[in-house]
Amino acid sequence: METEMPSIFSAKRTSFVRTSVIREILKLTVENSDILSFAGGLPNPNLLPKDVLHTVMESVVKENISTAFQYGDSSGYLPLRTGIANRLTDVSWSTPEAITITHGSQQGLDILGKMFMDSDTNVLLEDPVYLGALQAFSPYNPNFFSVPIEPDGPNLYWLEEIVSQNKIHVFYVNPSYQNPSTYTWSLEKRKQIAKILDEKEIILIEDEAYMYLDFSGIVYPSVSSFRKRSDLTFVLGSFSKILSPGFRLGWTVVPEVYRSLFTAIKQGNDLNSNQFSQVVVSKLLNVLDWKGHLHSIQKFYSDKKETLVSLLKENLPEARFSIPEGGMFLWVEYPQVSSKEFMDRCLASGVAMVPGSEFSPASRSSSYFRMNFSFLENEDLELGVKRITKVYRDINT
Amino acid sequence: METEMPSIFSAKRTSFVRTSVIREILKLTVENSDILSFAGGLPNPNLLPKDVLHTVMESVVKENISTAFQYGDSSGYLPLRTGIANRLTDVSWSTPEAITITHGSQQGLDILGKMFMDSDTNVLLEDPVYLGALQAFSPYNPNFFSVPIEPDGPNLYWLEEIVSQNKIHVFYVNPSYQNPSTYTWSLEKRKQIAKILDEKEIILIEDEAYMYLDFSGIVYPSVSSFRKRSDLTFVLGSFSKILSPGFRLGWTVVPEVYRSLFTAIKQGNDLNSNQFSQVVVSKLLNVLDWKGHLHSIQKFYSDKKETLVSLLKENLPEARFSIPEGGMFLWVEYPQVSSKEFMDRCLASGVAMVPGSEFSPASRSSSYFRMNFSFLENEDLELGVKRITKVYRDINT
Repeated sequence: METEMPSIFSAKRTSFVRTSVIREILKLTVENSDILSFAGGLPNPNLLPKDVLHTVMESVVKENISTAFQYGDSSGYLPLRTGIANRLTDVSWSTPEAITITHGSQQGLDILGKMFMDSDTNVLLEDPVYLGALQAFSPYNPNFFSVPIEPDGPNLYWLEEIVSQNKIHVFYVNPSYQNPSTYTWSLEKRKQIAKILDEKEIILIEDEAYMYLDFSGIVYPSVSSFRKRSDLTFVLGSFSKILSPGFRLGWTVVPEVYRSLFTAIKQGNDLNSNQFSQVVVSKLLNVLDWKGHLHSIQKFYSDKKETLVSLLKENLPEARFSIPEGGMFLWVEYPQVSSKEFMDRCLASGVAMVPGSEFSPASRSSSYFRMNFSFLENEDLELGVKRITKVYRDINT
Repeated sequence: METEMPSIFSAKRTSFVRTSVIREILKLTVENSDILSFAGGLPNPNLLPKDVLHTVMESVVKENISTAFQYGDSSGYLPLRTGIANRLTDVSWSTPEAITITHGSQQGLDILGKMFMDSDTNVLLEDPVYLGALQAFSPYNPNFFSVPIEPDGPNLYWLEEIVSQNKIHVFYVNPSYQNPSTYTWSLEKRKQIAKILDEKEIILIEDEAYMYLDFSGIVYPSVSSFRKRSDLTFVLGSFSKILSPGFRLGWTVVPEVYRSLFTAIKQGNDLNSNQFSQVVVSKLLNVLDWKGHLHSIQKFYSDKKETLVSLLKENLPEARFSIPEGGMFLWVEYPQVSSKEFMDRCLASGVAMVPGSEFSPASRSSSYFRMNFSFLENEDLELGVKRITKVYRDINT
């Protein structure tokens, strides 16, 4: 008795909903374990110290049952918000009250889309841009503009052009080890752009999900920390990469004037964030040797990056990329192949990457692919690069 | 440097965002533990068997680290979806593939609002209606219609009138132990209304969050199970009341034609549901004596209901209510008081209830209050009723 989807029933915004090739590939690789995947943004779950985790779980079940297994404050569990305010943000106004806990930083993006974006809202993105932001914002169908980014941040000439010729309402940025380009804004550009945003009264949505993933342990000051207009500044963070995506927790630092609205939207979305995970993570923040833990993650990612870089240089010197300062990706240009054909043949040969077109608001074709290096074991990184190399050579002979 | 919220920045839909008095009261009672709260919909966290929970946690940390602490399928963790399909839904088409895991059934409501509701979409609600549905749907600003409900379900005369005079797209219902009225649709009305919805091609959003909370252990067949048009039928369920709200997990049974769209919206919202909680709950489903567990919950709620009913009859015979068949609320009419004054003076006297106006799409004033009986200990139920009685008598003398 199934019928074709009756289009009269669906809301207009659904025609702007974007699906994600990454999530489709993730599903594919779950179903077929022979596919080696460079596609996900998957941290390595073994970086979580099991013994600490076990002790924390035990104490939650023993001591926190009435908090951890109940509904909670829509803004989040206060001890967790306090922990974040004390350790994981660098803007002066990030008090515990300013921090709202969300289901991943992704939910922060959805709430901000719902809050700010109508069909006549001008939203500036980086090009390329984090795919999840496109997914969060697209259903609200704003006017997207995009500014090309370079290894040290947005092209300032283009940025000035765009903001002087258009009333831009919101600028969404991912300034540290950007997903997918891996580019990191220089200190100078952070300052300059903060100034431009203040002058033009532009809302900044700064996604700092990778802030603590620098290979040398550097922590760049956020763009937001240079802004005077803190009332127009939202900073998003996430536990997915520094602790585990399994807790599905992130946060947004919300300016005071927008707090009640942000919380009301959060309530409508899902009442409150997972209390059990919030209690566990707040305890983990207290008992983990946090500095040592971050150092071990940074070291792990740095080593994996080295491995993939060497493998590509050795096997496929035609592949072009900048060496990132942090994060979990390489952004690799494979010249002289049709990206569609390359992608399809790689998948058929048991290896997955994300095509660059996914990260373009206009889905523009691109010779770039995003490669994750944090998830596969080293032997699989090697086998994967060999499979890619074979496909590349087959096409180019 | 804070300014007034610049209205040019906020999307138009934000003027329709509804806040919840319940969540505000919840916050108040967290801050001030002297307030006795009948306001929340809070299950009792002690119904969760600690020893089983502890064993499950231990096994998750030992055996499931690579699944539980990673990203996952946007539709949900397959073993959990299978467990739900096998045990917790009664519609014939609820295969594991049909079930999408959400952050509470609340998130299912938000996704369905995003999916179906434009400003010209006619949405029929029950009157009174579950407040969370108003919060989820309101930002999409549909045209709300409402049909009065009676102790055995919607008034059929009004329902026929509304659907024959208007093209209703979506009907949102909560047919078992409704929140807030506690009314439960009769079998006869379930069948008749399923037939009307089929004839008129109306999408049904059936919220069965309380399905397993009957005081005598009866499980009413869902309205959906009587529908022929399964392609226009969504059933929502939740673990919040039968296990714990701390896991923040619910589900939606999604018709095949809408599955990819539903999943794409879920991705945009928050990528996937909390994997850690999904793994824990799927294990709990397997190891708990499920029948015994449900029985003990039903017994607990039934006893608490008896307690509150007796206390009200004894102390304040003016209060009027029907005796519910299940759930966690009484829907109490306090005649001859201004609800605003009564509410304010109750709060000032250290006792909280939710005013009926919260459950009306038009925020219409009402002499009803929703009282939860599952959370307070018996001595506090008694003390609370005494405080309410005193306020009532003070006003009425």
